[in-house]
Amino acid sequence: MVKIGIVGGTGYTGVELLRLLASHAQADVRAITSRGEAGTRVVDMFPSLRGHYDALRFTAPDATDLKSCDVVFFATPHGVAMAQARGLVDAGVKVIDLAADFRIRDVAMFEKWYKMPHACPDLLAESVYGLPEFHRDEIRGARIVGNPGCYPTSMQLGFIPLIEAGVVDTGHLIADCKSGASGAGRKAEIGLLLAEASDNFRAYNVAGHRHHPETVQELASRSKTPLNLVFTPHLLPIVRGIHSTLYARLTRTDVDLQALFAKRYEGEPFVDVMPPGAAPDTRSVRASNVARIAVHRPGNADMVTVLVVIDNLVKGAAGQAIQNMNLMCGLPETTGLTAAPVVP
Amino acid sequence: MVKIGIVGGTGYTGVELLRLLASHAQADVRAITSRGEAGTRVVDMFPSLRGHYDALRFTAPDATDLKSCDVVFFATPHGVAMAQARGLVDAGVKVIDLAADFRIRDVAMFEKWYKMPHACPDLLAESVYGLPEFHRDEIRGARIVGNPGCYPTSMQLGFIPLIEAGVVDTGHLIADCKSGASGAGRKAEIGLLLAEASDNFRAYNVAGHRHHPETVQELASRSKTPLNLVFTPHLLPIVRGIHSTLYARLTRTDVDLQALFAKRYEGEPFVDVMPPGAAPDTRSVRASNVARIAVHRPGNADMVTVLVVIDNLVKGAAGQAIQNMNLMCGLPETTGLTAAPVVP
Amino acid sequence: MVKIGIVGGTGYTGVELLRLLASHAQADVRAITSRGEAGTRVVDMFPSLRGHYDALRFTAPDATDLKSCDVVFFATPHGVAMAQARGLVDAGVKVIDLAADFRIRDVAMFEKWYKMPHACPDLLAESVYGLPEFHRDEIRGARIVGNPGCYPTSMQLGFIPLIEAGVVDTGHLIADCKSGASGAGRKAEIGLLLAEASDNFRAYNVAGHRHHPETVQELASRSKTPLNLVFTPHLLPIVRGIHSTLYARLTRTDVDLQALFAKRYEGEPFVDVMPPGAAPDTRSVRASNVARIAVHRPGNADMVTVLVVIDNLVKGAAGQAIQNMNLMCGLPETTGLTAAPVVP
Amino acid sequence: MVKIGIVGGTGYTGVELLRLLASHAQADVRAITSRGEAGTRVVDMFPSLRGHYDALRFTAPDATDLKSCDVVFFATPHGVAMAQARGLVDAGVKVIDLAADFRIRDVAMFEKWYKMPHACPDLLAESVYGLPEFHRDEIRGARIVGNPGCYPTSMQLGFIPLIEAGVVDTGHLIADCKSGASGAGRKAEIGLLLAEASDNFRAYNVAGHRHHPETVQELASRSKTPLNLVFTPHLLPIVRGIHSTLYARLTRTDVDLQALFAKRYEGEPFVDVMPPGAAPDTRSVRASNVARIAVHRPGNADMVTVLVVIDNLVKGAAGQAIQNMNLMCGLPETTGLTAAPVVP
Repeated sequence: MVKIGIVGGTGYTGVELLRLLASHAQADVRAITSRGEAGTRVVDMFPSLRGHYDALRFTAPDATDLKSCDVVFFATPHGVAMAQARGLVDAGVKVIDLAADFRIRDVAMFEKWYKMPHACPDLLAESVYGLPEFHRDEIRGARIVGNPGCYPTSMQLGFIPLIEAGVVDTGHLIADCKSGASGAGRKAEIGLLLAEASDNFRAYNVAGHRHHPETVQELASRSKTPLNLVFTPHLLPIVRGIHSTLYARLTRTDVDLQALFAKRYEGEPFVDVMPPGAAPDTRSVRASNVARIAVHRPGNADMVTVLVVIDNLVKGAAGQAIQNMNLMCGLPETTGLTAAPVVP
Repeated sequence: MVKIGIVGGTGYTGVELLRLLASHAQADVRAITSRGEAGTRVVDMFPSLRGHYDALRFTAPDATDLKSCDVVFFATPHGVAMAQARGLVDAGVKVIDLAADFRIRDVAMFEKWYKMPHACPDLLAESVYGLPEFHRDEIRGARIVGNPGCYPTSMQLGFIPLIEAGVVDTGHLIADCKSGASGAGRKAEIGLLLAEASDNFRAYNVAGHRHHPETVQELASRSKTPLNLVFTPHLLPIVRGIHSTLYARLTRTDVDLQALFAKRYEGEPFVDVMPPGAAPDTRSVRASNVARIAVHRPGNADMVTVLVVIDNLVKGAAGQAIQNMNLMCGLPETTGLTAAPVVP
Repeated sequence: MVKIGIVGGTGYTGVELLRLLASHAQADVRAITSRGEAGTRVVDMFPSLRGHYDALRFTAPDATDLKSCDVVFFATPHGVAMAQARGLVDAGVKVIDLAADFRIRDVAMFEKWYKMPHACPDLLAESVYGLPEFHRDEIRGARIVGNPGCYPTSMQLGFIPLIEAGVVDTGHLIADCKSGASGAGRKAEIGLLLAEASDNFRAYNVAGHRHHPETVQELASRSKTPLNLVFTPHLLPIVRGIHSTLYARLTRTDVDLQALFAKRYEGEPFVDVMPPGAAPDTRSVRASNVARIAVHRPGNADMVTVLVVIDNLVKGAAGQAIQNMNLMCGLPETTGLTAAPVVP
Repeated sequence: MVKIGIVGGTGYTGVELLRLLASHAQADVRAITSRGEAGTRVVDMFPSLRGHYDALRFTAPDATDLKSCDVVFFATPHGVAMAQARGLVDAGVKVIDLAADFRIRDVAMFEKWYKMPHACPDLLAESVYGLPEFHRDEIRGARIVGNPGCYPTSMQLGFIPLIEAGVVDTGHLIADCKSGASGAGRKAEIGLLLAEASDNFRAYNVAGHRHHPETVQELASRSKTPLNLVFTPHLLPIVRGIHSTLYARLTRTDVDLQALFAKRYEGEPFVDVMPPGAAPDTRSVRASNVARIAVHRPGNADMVTVLVVIDNLVKGAAGQAIQNMNLMCGLPETTGLTAAPVVP
């Protein structure tokens, strides 16, 4: 059994970790912290978990023994994990941060976008970007994993096969991304109220979104040519799900794009390359760790369109974090992540 | 392993059986029939199941060997199961009908509401009403189970403790029920279009709904006094979930209602009596087989209000059917039904 | 032209007043106050009003000359209107409060439910409850109108014909009410987030809701027999709309309920008694001031079911307030309120 | 008064025409035809219109005198208007087709995409494409107007200023468009059911959509350089609204894009160029004829992003048709189209 601690368990990624770990045969959730809810029973806050965690209570961070855990997940705002990572890794605990503290290699870039100094650049340097499809071996040996953002996961899964194959103009990549409202987190904001966001649709952060630098870093690292990305996030009136519609100009039109994607993701347990002509819907991955991808070349012209869907809370957050935990702990990679998506 | 056949697998209860059975350690789905989709791969129709049933195809009913199955589920319109049940039970196959053919004891009542003669009144007579919380022992020994309707499940779970205890005026029971759109089935009707039913709410079948006789039959069988029920179904703009708000006049006000419900459902794996003051939301049981119940006595006056939530496709259909299968096959009752609800 | 001031214009009732008054031929909105948004252009906060109020800015309450207005609407939290009403009525300004300050006759009852002392019991005594269908003549001559709550409007429209006719057991009235999320106001609360409330349904305030005393006051005033009401509010995952399903036991079953309602509301411009068998949906009144009502007697037994739909922001708030303004100012009652509902 | 006939009034564009015309001071709806609903009262089918069209009944097309109308709207499937246009224009009736019969100049292109021969190429030749912002003068004198598609309206409003100014690479235009479900029409299809399309999002017709040739025709007619367009439609889980996110590569980066759009649409009553940095939401135009546009240049690089929102049933269909009628009949262009959008 893997002894697990969760720091900051009252947000959507925290409760999603709990939901998924409830069906994970090797998971033993020992502690879950919350500054604001210390003492509260987890099931009183999340009645959906009644019967699964009846004895578990949120505890104050300072009063919680996380060092006896094998793995600690940080489901916290940016800045928390980097402040506590040193003590944990020194104690031999594996750290998986679901926020951005260990995603961006360039400290200055991190500090520009997240408006805070980085607390441990040396740990950042050794940490691994937790997208198993591209960093599996490094993750296996990592002490600290920076779990990717939800949008970046979808963009990388869609763009990287094209970039690696060198068949697109990397100077003008376009990602038109749409996310369900849970992606914004469990925080009270007027713009996220049902009465505001339901029966409605809009773009946001058009001028710049924090998931941009992380995505560019990873895409550029695989590109032989300079890379620019236009990324437009939109808010969907749904609970879960990201749909990224990716566009690039083909620099070669003699390539079999379907075969390219099929081959790149052959054997990947959580990447499903759909048949030609398909258009995956977000619900087809609802509550599951699978990403589904379809590739199109409209009118057989020189543009490629890639459709990627993930559940932002699973492959985009908690599910991917557990996939990373499985790798770091030597468990089968799919443990606890095999339930079929919830449709309808 | 239980060898399973599913008749009529293209509707919501069919695909939900597949989803749940994909995580059931003892389930071996051998056949799934569909007149209209014979030859189609299941995963081509339901891409969410890709990776789970890649080799399974719909087959024509006549060309399908169901008699070698241990259990056959009918996820069909009313009238299909009763036409095929004889052959199957004679061959030793256990039959679970998710439609209404084996729910209503009174043949004339069935024929009045369902506008068709009953094909096998003798099998109807031996069949068991598949609500385990009230018929568990009979289900264990049954050859044919009539799986309850979704609304009736919620109404019975909420009313029966009160009726059995003899503390309410059974002549004026009121059930104000709200169901998600999947309850209407996967059929193309104008009124169920997103553009019609979304951002909208309405009652329907106020003059009479087919789930009324079935519910009255079961409630009355536990009542010492004549029983009348006003049942008003409403269409909720959500995918899954039933919320039944039940009202009755108390004939005794000295009873501890909370204790009454807690005791009645003690040890039940799929009935969760919520703490005093609670109001369960439909998502708290989303994709799960749990029913959550809260009981209120507003203003400490002589009325009782019971709130019941279920997932209409799980405890209201496919999950309950699997619960029945587990009982009929001697498996632990909760096998395959323990995943936590999907929240958010 | 009627010179209009709006106090507290940043909530849903405030912006709805602006929307409706934009099409009101006699309305001249002179001022709109907001403590938090003073200086902000109205159209910068509500871009949907661009082109309609381009020159209007929110002003600080203290810096706003409301006494030169003919009518002032209070679209504020409870307690604001009663603090300012004296000065305005003394200056000859008509006051319409969309909050609860002038709804409840019994000062002690007000103070119990709203947890604040009443600032002006004498003005409360002269104020009129602004439900035109039952208080039209008093409204015409009123200086202060307490605009009814949204739920209470729907419950009164449905119950009063039955109570006045003396045909129901008033001791056991039941109102099962469902409201869209805008009814909770434009305030940031976790429970009202799209990710929480969408694809979900629940009851709330089952033990007691502030709209209960107001409703009982008005219903009881028309009843010859003692009156008790069980009122269960539920949160619908829609933006606008209330659907109240009302139940009562008939004390006489020889009454023509359809005719009773038709006659009671004959000539009413904003009450539509639907044909027998109808079930109005909330969208059929979306963005309009109409209430639609259908009356049923299920199974011809001794229970009556009344279905009432209104738009909570129009007939349940801003539209009714304008209807009151029209009456108070001697304008045709329907001025500015005749646009057809928005369907789909 | 303008005497109006509507052919095919049971779809969403038909009922939307009725809704808008109910508030149009010069509109006299004389006839509305429906093959399937002849004899039915309009308000029995659309209860939201009760009180507005109580005397109007659907009539059989053959039994309806349309030739005495001043204007006839075709709110029918493709192919109906072209079959009847000759007789009407010969009788002096102005024809506005909300389907595609008079949108595409190239007969072969029409026949390729709509799979039917064109019935009257000569009338097609004289007909006018009814997008007033670009064809106002021709519309004023037209006998036949082909009302634009909803997606094409949004794409043209966003792209044309850039194309006319010659500042973008017209060979690689990208339109990522999202539409509410009413855009698919009031027809019973499984994929449009609430239980399928709600809490879900997907692209469709990625390989080719009928609105593509119409859009390319209009865009290309204003371009000095060859034009190619990648157009990806997506289905939004909302009732009304289109959000088009448009991308193009700038061939000149010294142009003030904000000023370009502001100048192009100066004085346009129904095009609102939003301030720099804005991101219009679909609800900001709900139920109104306004298009709102925002223009962005992310990272000040060589790409332009244009955001366009319209209500697909108003500016994308019925509202634009009435705008065209106003022009054709010499009425003020905004007559009947000035109500503020419905927010929230």
